[in-house]
Amino acid sequence: MTAPLAVTMGEPAGIGPDLILQLYAERDARALPAFLVYGHAEFLRQRAQRLGLSLSIVEATPETATSQFPNALPVLSLPGDVPDTPGQSVAGTGQVVIEAIARAVADTRAGRTSAVVTAPINKAALYEVGFAHPGHTEYLAELCAENGIVPLPVMMLAHEDLRTVPLTIHVPIKDVPGLITHDLIVETLRVMARDLTARYGIAAPKIAVAGLNPHAGENGTIGREDVEIIVPALEAARAEGINAIGPLPGDTLFFPPHWRQYDAVLAMYHDQALIPIKTVAFDAGVNVTLGLPIVRTSPDHGTAYALAGTGKASPSSFAAAIAMAHQMTANKS
Amino acid sequence: MTAPLAVTMGEPAGIGPDLILQLYAERDARALPAFLVYGHAEFLRQRAQRLGLSLSIVEATPETATSQFPNALPVLSLPGDVPDTPGQSVAGTGQVVIEAIARAVADTRAGRTSAVVTAPINKAALYEVGFAHPGHTEYLAELCAENGIVPLPVMMLAHEDLRTVPLTIHVPIKDVPGLITHDLIVETLRVMARDLTARYGIAAPKIAVAGLNPHAGENGTIGREDVEIIVPALEAARAEGINAIGPLPGDTLFFPPHWRQYDAVLAMYHDQALIPIKTVAFDAGVNVTLGLPIVRTSPDHGTAYALAGTGKASPSSFAAAIAMAHQMTANKS
Repeated sequence: MTAPLAVTMGEPAGIGPDLILQLYAERDARALPAFLVYGHAEFLRQRAQRLGLSLSIVEATPETATSQFPNALPVLSLPGDVPDTPGQSVAGTGQVVIEAIARAVADTRAGRTSAVVTAPINKAALYEVGFAHPGHTEYLAELCAENGIVPLPVMMLAHEDLRTVPLTIHVPIKDVPGLITHDLIVETLRVMARDLTARYGIAAPKIAVAGLNPHAGENGTIGREDVEIIVPALEAARAEGINAIGPLPGDTLFFPPHWRQYDAVLAMYHDQALIPIKTVAFDAGVNVTLGLPIVRTSPDHGTAYALAGTGKASPSSFAAAIAMAHQMTANKS
Repeated sequence: MTAPLAVTMGEPAGIGPDLILQLYAERDARALPAFLVYGHAEFLRQRAQRLGLSLSIVEATPETATSQFPNALPVLSLPGDVPDTPGQSVAGTGQVVIEAIARAVADTRAGRTSAVVTAPINKAALYEVGFAHPGHTEYLAELCAENGIVPLPVMMLAHEDLRTVPLTIHVPIKDVPGLITHDLIVETLRVMARDLTARYGIAAPKIAVAGLNPHAGENGTIGREDVEIIVPALEAARAEGINAIGPLPGDTLFFPPHWRQYDAVLAMYHDQALIPIKTVAFDAGVNVTLGLPIVRTSPDHGTAYALAGTGKASPSSFAAAIAMAHQMTANKS
C-alpha cells in the first residue's frame, strides 16, 4: 500500500480545516491521492457539521490511512481540547497545532507518510504556547536538523510550470540590497538545482536569475549590485555545473515566452517573485519548501479568519498543494 | 475631415520604421485610424523596398494626410540625409529624429494632428547631435512647457484594462525608499485621476496604490515607509477628492480579481509596475505619458537594432499604441 500524504490541520480558527474537509468531500472529482490529517478528529467532525458536509471521519495511523481513505477521512488525532470557534483562536489549541506539524514531519522522515502538506497557522497564537521559531518554514527546517545542522529552507512559489524563488522574503525594500550576498545566491541556487532534479525530475535544470535593479542595472549604470554581486555569484554557480542564467531584467523575464525557457526563476525580493505568480495563478499558487530532506508544500494563503466556517474559502490552492506534493513524491530520487 | 494621428519615425536604424510600414500595409485588416508619419519619405521608401512591402509613400501635411491615407502612406518629410542602414545608426540622422518629435508635438498642440505616437529612439545617437534631455518623455514634457513651466510627465503602462504607473522609474532599488515622498505621490495621483477622466472617459477613477514593502509593510513591522509616507499621502489625496485606495500588498493586488476592481494602479518602483504588464500583455503593452496637454503613446519596446530591416519584429505593441492613442483622443474632454 502506498504511504499517504501527511496533511497538517493548521490553525483551528482558520480556513485550513474547512478546506481539508471540503477537499476530502470532493476527493473523487478532484482525483486526490490518499492523505492522513494530523489534527483532532472530534474538532473536525464539528467543523464538518457546521459546513453541512456529510462525511465520515475515522481515527487512523500512517499504516491504516490509505486503505481507510476511500470510505472515511483518516485523522491522526492528537490529545487536547480543540473547540470549534471559527475566526477566534483559543488559548491552548496551539499545542495540538505544533504537535501535528512535528508528528507529520517525523512520520515523513521515517517514510511512513510520503510528504507533508501544511495548512496555514497563526503564529501569534503559537507564540502564546511557547513557539520559538520565526515561522512555519523555519520550524520545519529545525525539525529536519541532522547532527545539529539545520538545512537552509528555500521558499518557492509554483503554478504549473512557473516557479519562482524570492532570495529575500519578509524584509523592508531598503534592506534588500544589503542582504543580497554572494554566498546566499550560490547556496540558494545549489538548493534549487538539486531539488528541481530530485523533486521535479528535471535532469538539467535551467535557472533564470532576475536582476535587482531596473533592466538588471543596465551594465552597472542603474545600481552596482547586479554587476558587483550577482554576476560573480552566477559565475561561481556555473563553475559548479549549475545552469544559472542572468542577471536578466526582472520585468521582461516574466513575459511568458521568456520564463517558459527556464525551469525556475530566482528573484531578488518578495514582490518580484510573487507578482508574476499571483498574476497568472489566480488562487492556485503553491508554496513549496526546497532544501529539506522531505517534500513539503502548502497553499499560498493564510488563515483567513473572516472566511473560516463559512464554506466560502476557495480550495484551489490547497488542492494544488496536495497534487504537487504527490507529484513531487513520485519524482523523488 | 478628422485630424490624423502624428506618428514619429524614431531611430532610422531601429525597428520603428519597419513597424510603421508594416502596420500601414495592414491598415485595413487592423482597422487603423489615419496617421501621418513625421520623418523622411525617401528613407521610408528604401526601407519598404528592403522589407518587400509594396506600398505607396506620399509627401503630406496634417491637412492632407487623412484623405491621402487610404491610398498612400502620408509622410511629413523633413530635410536631411537619412540612409537606410538597419542596425547601424548614422551620424547626422539625429536632427531628423529630433525635429520629427518637435513638429509632431507642435502640430498636436495646435490641433492639426490629434495625438502623438512615438517610435523608439536611440538616446546615444541623439546625444551626439546635442540632445540635452534625459529621455524621450522629458523632451516631450519640455516641448509642452507653458510660460516656462514644464508639466510633470507620468509614465503609465497599459494593456486593455490593466494600467500601472511606476512612481519611481530607472533608479537603483537602494534609492527607491528615499525617492518616495509625500509630494511626489500626491502630484502623481492628481495627474492619474485627472487623465483617467480626461483621456479614458472614466468619471470617478478608482486608483489602487501598492505598498513599498512586502505585504505593504504589515502595519509598519516590515519597513516604515508604508505607514509613515504612503498612508498620509493617500489621506491628503483623498482630502482632495481623489479615490486612492492603499497601500495594498504589491503581490496580491495583481491577482486579477483584485486589480480589476480598480481603474489603475500606482506602484512604487519599476519592476512592481512592469512585471504584471509583461506577464499578462505578452508583447502588446503600451507606454502612455499622462500629465501632458497632448495625448502621447508609444510601443513598450526599444529600437531592437538586431531585428531592424528583417521584417521579424512584432508590430503588436505599436499597433496597440496607435489604437490606444486614437481611443484616448476620442475620449478627450
